[in-house]
Amino acid sequence: MTALHTDLYEIRMAASYLRRGMTEPATFSLFVRDLPGDRGFLVAAGLADCLSFLESLYFDESELAYLRDTVHLRESDVDALGRIRFRGEVWAPPEGTIVFPGEPLLEVTAPLPQAQLVETAMLNHLTFQSTVATKAARCRLAAAGAELVDFAARRTHGPGAAFAVARACALAGFGGTSHVASARRFGLRPVGTMAHSYIQAFPGEIEAFRAFAEDFPDNTVFLVDTYDTITGVRAAIDVARAAGIPDERAGIRLDSGDLLALARQARRLLDDAGMTRSVIMASGGLDEYELSRLTAAGAPIDSYGVGTKVGVSADAPALDSAYKLVEYAGRPVMKLSSGKATLPGAKQVFRTAPGEPDVLASRDEPVPRGHRPLLVPVMRNGRRLRGSDSLADARRRFERDLRWLPESARRLRGPRPVEVRRSAHLEDLTARVRAAARALNSPR
Amino acid sequence: MTALHTDLYEIRMAASYLRRGMTEPATFSLFVRDLPGDRGFLVAAGLADCLSFLESLYFDESELAYLRDTVHLRESDVDALGRIRFRGEVWAPPEGTIVFPGEPLLEVTAPLPQAQLVETAMLNHLTFQSTVATKAARCRLAAAGAELVDFAARRTHGPGAAFAVARACALAGFGGTSHVASARRFGLRPVGTMAHSYIQAFPGEIEAFRAFAEDFPDNTVFLVDTYDTITGVRAAIDVARAAGIPDERAGIRLDSGDLLALARQARRLLDDAGMTRSVIMASGGLDEYELSRLTAAGAPIDSYGVGTKVGVSADAPALDSAYKLVEYAGRPVMKLSSGKATLPGAKQVFRTAPGEPDVLASRDEPVPRGHRPLLVPVMRNGRRLRGSDSLADARRRFERDLRWLPESARRLRGPRPVEVRRSAHLEDLTARVRAAARALNSPR
Repeated sequence: MTALHTDLYEIRMAASYLRRGMTEPATFSLFVRDLPGDRGFLVAAGLADCLSFLESLYFDESELAYLRDTVHLRESDVDALGRIRFRGEVWAPPEGTIVFPGEPLLEVTAPLPQAQLVETAMLNHLTFQSTVATKAARCRLAAAGAELVDFAARRTHGPGAAFAVARACALAGFGGTSHVASARRFGLRPVGTMAHSYIQAFPGEIEAFRAFAEDFPDNTVFLVDTYDTITGVRAAIDVARAAGIPDERAGIRLDSGDLLALARQARRLLDDAGMTRSVIMASGGLDEYELSRLTAAGAPIDSYGVGTKVGVSADAPALDSAYKLVEYAGRPVMKLSSGKATLPGAKQVFRTAPGEPDVLASRDEPVPRGHRPLLVPVMRNGRRLRGSDSLADARRRFERDLRWLPESARRLRGPRPVEVRRSAHLEDLTARVRAAARALNSPR
Repeated sequence: MTALHTDLYEIRMAASYLRRGMTEPATFSLFVRDLPGDRGFLVAAGLADCLSFLESLYFDESELAYLRDTVHLRESDVDALGRIRFRGEVWAPPEGTIVFPGEPLLEVTAPLPQAQLVETAMLNHLTFQSTVATKAARCRLAAAGAELVDFAARRTHGPGAAFAVARACALAGFGGTSHVASARRFGLRPVGTMAHSYIQAFPGEIEAFRAFAEDFPDNTVFLVDTYDTITGVRAAIDVARAAGIPDERAGIRLDSGDLLALARQARRLLDDAGMTRSVIMASGGLDEYELSRLTAAGAPIDSYGVGTKVGVSADAPALDSAYKLVEYAGRPVMKLSSGKATLPGAKQVFRTAPGEPDVLASRDEPVPRGHRPLLVPVMRNGRRLRGSDSLADARRRFERDLRWLPESARRLRGPRPVEVRRSAHLEDLTARVRAAARALNSPR
């Protein structure tokens, strides 16, 4: 993805800054203003792709020709843009960190044209991937220890999104993905059973089951709802026993109907047949609410295939994210737009024991006793710092933060996000910058 | 995107079919079962990417090694999969066609393993792109002739989705996109103004406006809401006149607050200054409902920047799409799962005058008098047929179908989709296949 993956106004502004020599360091802060309905927290994700984008930022010759010939930038602007590389510094809470509204997901400090140009890509990766990681985390909370598998690839927003979704789900503790290319890229467990079409391609269900047991004796999960679910379960049992499949390698998948009632009936049939270790998998339009209903009712389901509703974060497919200039050339700045005001200066977030509020502070404030800072430097002089983007680290970080997260913020419905207090220093700075901006831009 | 962009079960099923010599022609039908809330129609989009995927379907050496070493397929399975190319036939309503639930968006006929393997990619492209094209079409209906511009790139589901969204919006008649890479790839008009950060980087708003007018005298749209909107409008007028910018090249953008009231005040101020041809652009969380409210109230807004809510189709980010086996080796098949039954055999849709129902028929039925068939062959023997995927053609097709679409289906709230009747032949075939499937798979 090259530097043309941006909005036109970023390029026009960057050209204007370059022309005017406005290349002093600028700090932009990326944060989410408000949480969508029923969200009590956010899981930070997408930083790895942001850093890759920044490391390889440049316009190639054909892109520069496009900017000259079609966008009609001046030759001198095009030359200046052609020399742009990202040489800035980035601070962020590493992936997997749980954050709250107003807390930065990323802060970029770089010469103004560089920092401006990357806005679109930074917002895109972090908004999307944090949206999905958060949705997946909610499924984790609802699944009560049952295994979760990402089944979303067929309905994500394009093939690229299928990769990001598989990774975000893994970050939140999913046990595997159906998307083979993602499993390979990220070292995840590939998971797959059979589709209805497999059964329909044979003369009858029983013939399809026999063929499947013969071809995949090591992992034989029968899809039982093509015609009649309970008939299907009985056929699966007959075939598995006739084929001599050990019960821990056999299983069934339910994909329609009353999953709770069917799982109970299927469990009884399997147990009666002595197949006590055979798993029951469920899929079909699942999300955290349905998972919660099933686990609360004690559904005997071992593994859930969760697809579309997580892959597109169906009830809240985007976040109200912003990438705002907070400092330029050593001068803290802010925006006063109605309902969209921003706080000046580079930030830090200090966190302490569960149940205590986070503190949003200026970056250079001392760490209060008993607190730890959430933002760490992840890139300096345009090069990523080691260890800032491993999926394994992100998973561990998420598990740690999940243990910290208070129950009031974990609730699926009506949660209360952890409070974010502003430090006295930040309050004071905000008041001063606001007064100065008002004085300079008041009605004439 | 290679053949590993698929779900694991597709690969396992394909391997099993190959092992068993089950390579007779299979027909899969891809359709949407139900429309999401408030949708009265669907705009078909995504076919071009489907055909590109099919044309280049293969597993490379490293992918085959992955299937052998990590997925643990047998060597003979891996060899057989390594020889797979797509050599099938595809019928579809071309992009831009307006369709309804149950009408195919795509039908693939190919040797069973090939047709099975491509399920994930076909569902992914068509579901996503039709979702967004439909959302964009609803904005068209709401905009009452005002210009629409795609501003979604910062919040689409990844960078790849930004391209697909820009294209889907263009298909539905948007006049431009902010996403430069998409503008270049698809030959769209790139559109951009300035961000709040540009204004904040200068000592005050007026200094920023002066710099912008100097640097972009050919296209000077001032963002006026950084501090106080009406003050911003007055500053824009002063700067444009002082810089001698012709009024048709100047404009303002509103991005927050009460857009209707602010647009009216701004229009009055511009007109009073003699800038009657200067445009007013509005943006900020817009969707078809807000556009409709603004246009119904006669808001003097010339151009709308529409972003996140269209780019993720916020109120309905996915469709209930399915890719179902309907025929194998000359035998029509169907699935009986509760609530998810399918109709057997390859299909055609016949359409006639506005207000009349569509007819869902078997593909080989004669065209009824006064009707035209919606599905056409777009690929034969794995090669796309000429003219099946031009964006310009898709736009024309969409405009034609939009004129045909009855008012009852166009409504933004509580629309009634055009009725889809089944032909007598299809009803009869369905009854016969259902009886046969029931007989073969009844409880034992």
